Amino acid sequence: MSSAMESNQHVFLISCPDSQGLVHKITGVLFRHKLNVIENQEYVDRHNKSFFMRTEVMGEFDRDTVLGELKKELPTKTEIGLYPQTAKNLVILVTKEPHCLGDLLLHQAAGDIKAKISAVVSQYDYLRELTERFDIPFHHVPVGEKTRAQHEVLLEKIIDPYNPDLLVLAKYMRILSPKFVAKYKNRIINIHHSFLPAFKGEKPYTQAYERGVKIIGATAHFVNEALDEGPIITQEVVRIDHTQDAASLARSGKAVERAVLTKAVNLLIENRVIVQKQRTLVFE
Amino acid sequence: MSSAMESNQHVFLISCPDSQGLVHKITGVLFRHKLNVIENQEYVDRHNKSFFMRTEVMGEFDRDTVLGELKKELPTKTEIGLYPQTAKNLVILVTKEPHCLGDLLLHQAAGDIKAKISAVVSQYDYLRELTERFDIPFHHVPVGEKTRAQHEVLLEKIIDPYNPDLLVLAKYMRILSPKFVAKYKNRIINIHHSFLPAFKGEKPYTQAYERGVKIIGATAHFVNEALDEGPIITQEVVRIDHTQDAASLARSGKAVERAVLTKAVNLLIENRVIVQKQRTLVFE
Amino acid sequence: MSSAMESNQHVFLISCPDSQGLVHKITGVLFRHKLNVIENQEYVDRHNKSFFMRTEVMGEFDRDTVLGELKKELPTKTEIGLYPQTAKNLVILVTKEPHCLGDLLLHQAAGDIKAKISAVVSQYDYLRELTERFDIPFHHVPVGEKTRAQHEVLLEKIIDPYNPDLLVLAKYMRILSPKFVAKYKNRIINIHHSFLPAFKGEKPYTQAYERGVKIIGATAHFVNEALDEGPIITQEVVRIDHTQDAASLARSGKAVERAVLTKAVNLLIENRVIVQKQRTLVFE
Amino acid sequence: MSSAMESNQHVFLISCPDSQGLVHKITGVLFRHKLNVIENQEYVDRHNKSFFMRTEVMGEFDRDTVLGELKKELPTKTEIGLYPQTAKNLVILVTKEPHCLGDLLLHQAAGDIKAKISAVVSQYDYLRELTERFDIPFHHVPVGEKTRAQHEVLLEKIIDPYNPDLLVLAKYMRILSPKFVAKYKNRIINIHHSFLPAFKGEKPYTQAYERGVKIIGATAHFVNEALDEGPIITQEVVRIDHTQDAASLARSGKAVERAVLTKAVNLLIENRVIVQKQRTLVFE
Repeated sequence: MSSAMESNQHVFLISCPDSQGLVHKITGVLFRHKLNVIENQEYVDRHNKSFFMRTEVMGEFDRDTVLGELKKELPTKTEIGLYPQTAKNLVILVTKEPHCLGDLLLHQAAGDIKAKISAVVSQYDYLRELTERFDIPFHHVPVGEKTRAQHEVLLEKIIDPYNPDLLVLAKYMRILSPKFVAKYKNRIINIHHSFLPAFKGEKPYTQAYERGVKIIGATAHFVNEALDEGPIITQEVVRIDHTQDAASLARSGKAVERAVLTKAVNLLIENRVIVQKQRTLVFE
Repeated sequence: MSSAMESNQHVFLISCPDSQGLVHKITGVLFRHKLNVIENQEYVDRHNKSFFMRTEVMGEFDRDTVLGELKKELPTKTEIGLYPQTAKNLVILVTKEPHCLGDLLLHQAAGDIKAKISAVVSQYDYLRELTERFDIPFHHVPVGEKTRAQHEVLLEKIIDPYNPDLLVLAKYMRILSPKFVAKYKNRIINIHHSFLPAFKGEKPYTQAYERGVKIIGATAHFVNEALDEGPIITQEVVRIDHTQDAASLARSGKAVERAVLTKAVNLLIENRVIVQKQRTLVFE
Repeated sequence: MSSAMESNQHVFLISCPDSQGLVHKITGVLFRHKLNVIENQEYVDRHNKSFFMRTEVMGEFDRDTVLGELKKELPTKTEIGLYPQTAKNLVILVTKEPHCLGDLLLHQAAGDIKAKISAVVSQYDYLRELTERFDIPFHHVPVGEKTRAQHEVLLEKIIDPYNPDLLVLAKYMRILSPKFVAKYKNRIINIHHSFLPAFKGEKPYTQAYERGVKIIGATAHFVNEALDEGPIITQEVVRIDHTQDAASLARSGKAVERAVLTKAVNLLIENRVIVQKQRTLVFE
Repeated sequence: MSSAMESNQHVFLISCPDSQGLVHKITGVLFRHKLNVIENQEYVDRHNKSFFMRTEVMGEFDRDTVLGELKKELPTKTEIGLYPQTAKNLVILVTKEPHCLGDLLLHQAAGDIKAKISAVVSQYDYLRELTERFDIPFHHVPVGEKTRAQHEVLLEKIIDPYNPDLLVLAKYMRILSPKFVAKYKNRIINIHHSFLPAFKGEKPYTQAYERGVKIIGATAHFVNEALDEGPIITQEVVRIDHTQDAASLARSGKAVERAVLTKAVNLLIENRVIVQKQRTLVFE
């Protein structure tokens, strides 16, 4: 994927029932408005008779006029997202583990991801020092005697003034209520490790050790009501071997979680992901 | 791993409770018998206080004398396997899918694996033509009205005269009884695909499609009473994307199954695997 | 990539100078002829101001009419390839090594690649037995006292009646003359291994051993006048380690060559590759 | 590899001409001194008739006595390194690029590598801010009118008081003199990217783009007189595609450089690398 961003670049993400001539109609609107198509990808899901398109354009245009013309040309049930290719605004939620947060902070500091990390929020105070090294505000919101609902109200009070494009759960180990998840629909992403083959239950790295697992994976996904089962954004694996004890497996797991979460954040920043029911289309 | 094989090479696979001086004692016996150590690997499982060693030696020696001396030097519960590094004798069980069988046949024909494929056995007649292209006997053992026990008696009658070192289930889609599995303990290997994260149930590739899975894996493992849960030998993955329908995912799954099964067979042929409870130690 | 093929599917591969409205114009022609777009990918090379498009369509149409209309709509220097998505016709050239040939034969036999292997041709007789196991004609064309030109005339006499879509050099270890290469322009593909970092000269695997190289790669590419430097189609690598001697490195090298050549053949069979100067665009 | 470190753990790295009974003799010395062997790996280079062993032991012992006994038992030309498994002391040299430095700083801050980064040194002042975020001293040593020799004298004056175990060139873009390299023999490591297949000359990412390269690799190696050709420690690759322009290729190259350098540093910290002529043995 090419990811240079310029101020007058925008991405259209379009989903609609499939029919003939869709690309022709869409590009016709863009052509009339003298928009330059930089990158264009379509995908037809023949099984579900659905059409998806990601189009990255360069040029000046009136947002409402173009969206209006597109809607007139396309089927009734069409959904269109229109996003400027500018830096996204992130709020990161963490608990105690620094590896995912650190990777995001570092990439931002090096200019390798087009994000502004506006704040880091946690139910503990552990990661304050790391966060503040990068001059980013850290908010400690202890749980204490609060109910989940009460705690989430406090989270929202801190998060909402930043108006984030994306809430990144960087090893945030608390379950979020369906109400909270619904409020930030398709804007919360999470990371978790997994194993081949999978197993349920406590102490996963101990189980992985006992089973002699040879590969650890990590999955970045949107959060929906089912915490670890929202649409998958991206995945990666790392090879392990019998000389690794549970602690060493955990280190390997962290390394792959970190890489996968940063990659997922990048895909979302560049507006490369469309959610369709329980799955994503990723236009890399 | 180095895998050139010569006729006077042998591998010792040793497991025992850990204690001080084990390597010294073992290599002392080998040294007295003027055996040249070509490759030597040990692993101490500190959690379970167990010691494991794979030693590949070159030279002439009297099998019983050396094994006797080793047993005298080592703790009571020591298990020692002693294997010549010569071509292994395989019988392959298949159903209808040709991809894993074909890869093994081809590698054998090219001399890339040190195996003699003695026979291919199946409950169907589908893969006869492919097998016989390579001048290998194909045995069709239909199930018909037979019970599992009756069918397995027929299988054994065909398999046992070949005296195989290894029974390879190359997409053999019938469950084997605990009795059959026990008879060939630690000598039956199986291959299956899996997903990150995993899910149970029918039509796995359709589920993988619906969930938008981005990685397919394959696991080669020993067969024990729990068909797909014996000790894992090796695993590999392949990346997939949203443009693949269920049929295309199935093709990717086959490719990775094929590669992983052939790799596992190679590890066993070279005597690189020790089974310890529910896990394997793989000395690559 | 989705690769199911149906008889009324075609692929357009279009290259032209970039200008506004190209996608709109092209899809307009397809729309007027009621062609269903199944898969569509474009790429704009902004550096070279070039536009590339791969469009897979389904439906009945008159070839000349559609091509004529496209040419009228598009810039003067446009190149359009139009290919039916049907099985391609291959002739394979080999020398002595069986690994790449075997993999292609096996995939064809299993129906995993949409190719008809029409013939195998070699300057030696080594691989006759393997080829004939799959009921495919093998032609032995010894070099003897012949000049390169004389030998190639004999090759052409054998190859041309098969009218191949693709000449696959599956470890064919003889240099082809510029004249021969020009005759089959962009239809000859070759495979070779390489190392990170690279080195020149004799006995590459011995050099790789001495340098302690940790990765071996393989590159499938089109053959042009510079034998190993035509446009790259696809590449893959395999990890190696210090326990591997030169012979073992050579085995690893073969495994990756085999996988890469088969993958490249598949990409070409599905018409996913456009050659642009010294590089390829691969629409996976 | 298992990498938990405890204060009374040590690693022996032994190289000597091969002969019978070496493992027996070495482990005999360790056994007499009641040292527990935690991890043990040997490798016999049959081609060069050389023996290599990495042994990790736990326990109290007198360093000189044990080394003396080992030398008495082993051939004349034996080389023995004995290293405590404690955190290593690093000095990092950089120029302008932050990606490799940042990854090392972050891993150290997270406790993921057992290193103390004592200082960062550069001919420019660019990376001061990043370094000081982690409370590590940054030394700016401008080149100005100085000769290479004069500049290196200043570098040594800064480096030597830190008494580093390892000098890490984290994209340090200045050639070091043979004299400087010899002073820190086998203690300087460097990182560079490379391509499959390789090419020489200016603007490598532009060349990679023009050639349509599909894979970028990175190599971490010891620095010897030939700057980029010292013994290779580890390598990794990343897949790229035709949609990436030279700038995007450069980003991919940085990501793989960063991962590979950090991995190499870890291997050295854990004393897993033996240099043998132009190659390394890596006991993972």
